Amino acid sequence: MPYPITITQTDRKKEKPDSSCLGFGRYFTDHMFVMDYSAEIGWHDPRIVPYAPLALDPAALVLHYGQAIFEGMKAYRTSDDRILLFRPEKNAQRLNLSAARLSMPSIDEELFLEALRTLISLEKDWVPRERGTSLYIRPFMFATEPYLGVRASESYKLVIVLSPVGAYYAGGMKPVKIHVESRYVRAVRGGTGFAKVSGNYAASLKAQEDAHAKGYEQVLWLDAIENKYIEEVGSMNVFFKINGEVWTPPLHGSILGGITRDSVIHLLRDWGIPVREEKLSMEDLYVAYTRGELEEAFGTGTAAVVSPIGVLGWNDHHMVINHEQIGELTAKLYGTLTGIQYGEIADPYGWIVEVE
Amino acid sequence: MPYPITITQTDRKKEKPDSSCLGFGRYFTDHMFVMDYSAEIGWHDPRIVPYAPLALDPAALVLHYGQAIFEGMKAYRTSDDRILLFRPEKNAQRLNLSAARLSMPSIDEELFLEALRTLISLEKDWVPRERGTSLYIRPFMFATEPYLGVRASESYKLVIVLSPVGAYYAGGMKPVKIHVESRYVRAVRGGTGFAKVSGNYAASLKAQEDAHAKGYEQVLWLDAIENKYIEEVGSMNVFFKINGEVWTPPLHGSILGGITRDSVIHLLRDWGIPVREEKLSMEDLYVAYTRGELEEAFGTGTAAVVSPIGVLGWNDHHMVINHEQIGELTAKLYGTLTGIQYGEIADPYGWIVEVE
Ligand SMILES: Cc1ncc(COP(=O)(O)O)c(C=O)c1O
Ligand SMILES: Cc1ncc(COP(=O)(O)O)c(C=O)c1O
Repeated sequence: MPYPITITQTDRKKEKPDSSCLGFGRYFTDHMFVMDYSAEIGWHDPRIVPYAPLALDPAALVLHYGQAIFEGMKAYRTSDDRILLFRPEKNAQRLNLSAARLSMPSIDEELFLEALRTLISLEKDWVPRERGTSLYIRPFMFATEPYLGVRASESYKLVIVLSPVGAYYAGGMKPVKIHVESRYVRAVRGGTGFAKVSGNYAASLKAQEDAHAKGYEQVLWLDAIENKYIEEVGSMNVFFKINGEVWTPPLHGSILGGITRDSVIHLLRDWGIPVREEKLSMEDLYVAYTRGELEEAFGTGTAAVVSPIGVLGWNDHHMVINHEQIGELTAKLYGTLTGIQYGEIADPYGWIVEVE
Repeated sequence: MPYPITITQTDRKKEKPDSSCLGFGRYFTDHMFVMDYSAEIGWHDPRIVPYAPLALDPAALVLHYGQAIFEGMKAYRTSDDRILLFRPEKNAQRLNLSAARLSMPSIDEELFLEALRTLISLEKDWVPRERGTSLYIRPFMFATEPYLGVRASESYKLVIVLSPVGAYYAGGMKPVKIHVESRYVRAVRGGTGFAKVSGNYAASLKAQEDAHAKGYEQVLWLDAIENKYIEEVGSMNVFFKINGEVWTPPLHGSILGGITRDSVIHLLRDWGIPVREEKLSMEDLYVAYTRGELEEAFGTGTAAVVSPIGVLGWNDHHMVINHEQIGELTAKLYGTLTGIQYGEIADPYGWIVEVE
């Protein structure tokens, strides 16, 4: 690849944390990728440098008007010590989709992938070894121009940091309790919900806190217009198996197009299971539930891959799904996806990219 | 005041820019106020330090999940060289309202006002002298914890920077052309529109750019639910004089409660002009327009104070308001508010706070 990514190695490497207590997003590797954008010269100076604080003017636009987007993906270590990425080109594409929504400059997707490969290769000892652990990859882009007018910034930084993370299901996979949120909303048609925009997450914190206080692990978001249709669960896409068919909300502007979601849909169709990307109201879900037709429910996302839902609390209804047990299909999807990600199962889809 | 704000003075003061070419939000004074928050000890170490870049961990939550809020206000120099603030306690209250929406810690409003007074007093030579110019004050708070989990940060920074700004109407007040936006939305009930949250502004940039490309100066936002009711104009509240009455949208969750808006309503009621804080649809506005009853339209906000609207472009309709001339009431409101702000008119409302 002809991209001149310069590398400045650190002269004091950190001690690596014990892989049994990594948690999520707490530890960061020795280096990071950084690239700058200015209106005059475009993207320039792609470089790998020691992980260190960024100097930001107090008037940098990101701190005022929230022009910031990000991605989330993982590198997995196989038992024969290869390092694999899962559909990284999709993250590159989605980063550009998010950038366009916030009037930010697009990046060259090839350069992005090259930056990932170069950085991960340099940090390969940081990819933890235990099954279930991984190296979480966080690319993000934000506005740096020191200016207080409300308009798109004329300068940006793209940064990629890496964080070794523990197994999501360290204590074993366990179905979660979800609160159906009817006061706060995550996103609305015409807004930024379909993009991975930082402000979406700030807007979601209050509902999550309220749900925790009520004893739930996460919230299920309803649409902002009618407060009726199911959208997402926490920061995951959501699926319901009803009477042998799998339902998931369609991508109509307020829902993030998850890469795990897309992969799950692929697998299901491959297995001959009907998938309906159609609007589904809580009322209809509840009717299916009372009829005993709601067989399984799960969220999907890079962090958890698949997360079974055991309970839905909706107004006064306490809906227990599949006796709070992991569903058969949920388990099969989880097994297949993680099997492919860790190189244990053949990948007939071309999803895996090896880091040399 | 018993708040121990420490002051570290700069040893190299900047040259002050020529007050005729200040523009907005480009120049910053020699010092800034900074205060830190941690979950263990709360707010601590309030200090005034030289204006300088902030060091931010690349994983600082603000760069990822947009936990950031801000305020905007001004200090005005009177002809007899006093320095006045306009209803600063309202900004302190609104900052706390915004903080609550994003699960951020509240600040002591008295300390906030003391910080303002101390900083502005130190920087008083930066308050420009020409009528119409002012010292723009930008308090902002953001999440600093280095962590990638989606939850509220456990540490924050509150910063106040000051920027001398030029007269908004340097070339004379001129009615603006506004595009009624029907694709993108700014905010929705259940979201963050009523708070001064950074993500709201990022979400608004695309529509603004599109409007510029079509030859308009700003957008008029409609409600996100029915795409029908008028909400705000750019980053301003909006008012319409229809048949002798003044209409402005009510604060029902998606609209920012502007301090200028509140002041305008006060003045109008004081002057015996009926004010209707009621939902107003574009259809109804258009009907009033075709009947010749739409007499004036204007936006309100700290930056412009009052901004007359000369044209509304709504689908295929080109609505010319008051022959694109500044309305009588618009002019009177502008004159009265700026007169009070610059200490030229008596302030019967207790709005003015002098900085000693
Ligand atoms: C809001 C939201 N929905 C869904 C997802 C799932 O996307 P993916 O499967 O690409 O991780 C994410 C990201 O993890 C998200 O932030
Ligand atoms: C979205 C929005 N609406 C309205 C206003 C007006 O508020 P204020 O009059 O307090 O400046 C502002 C801030 O200026 C704003 O950002």
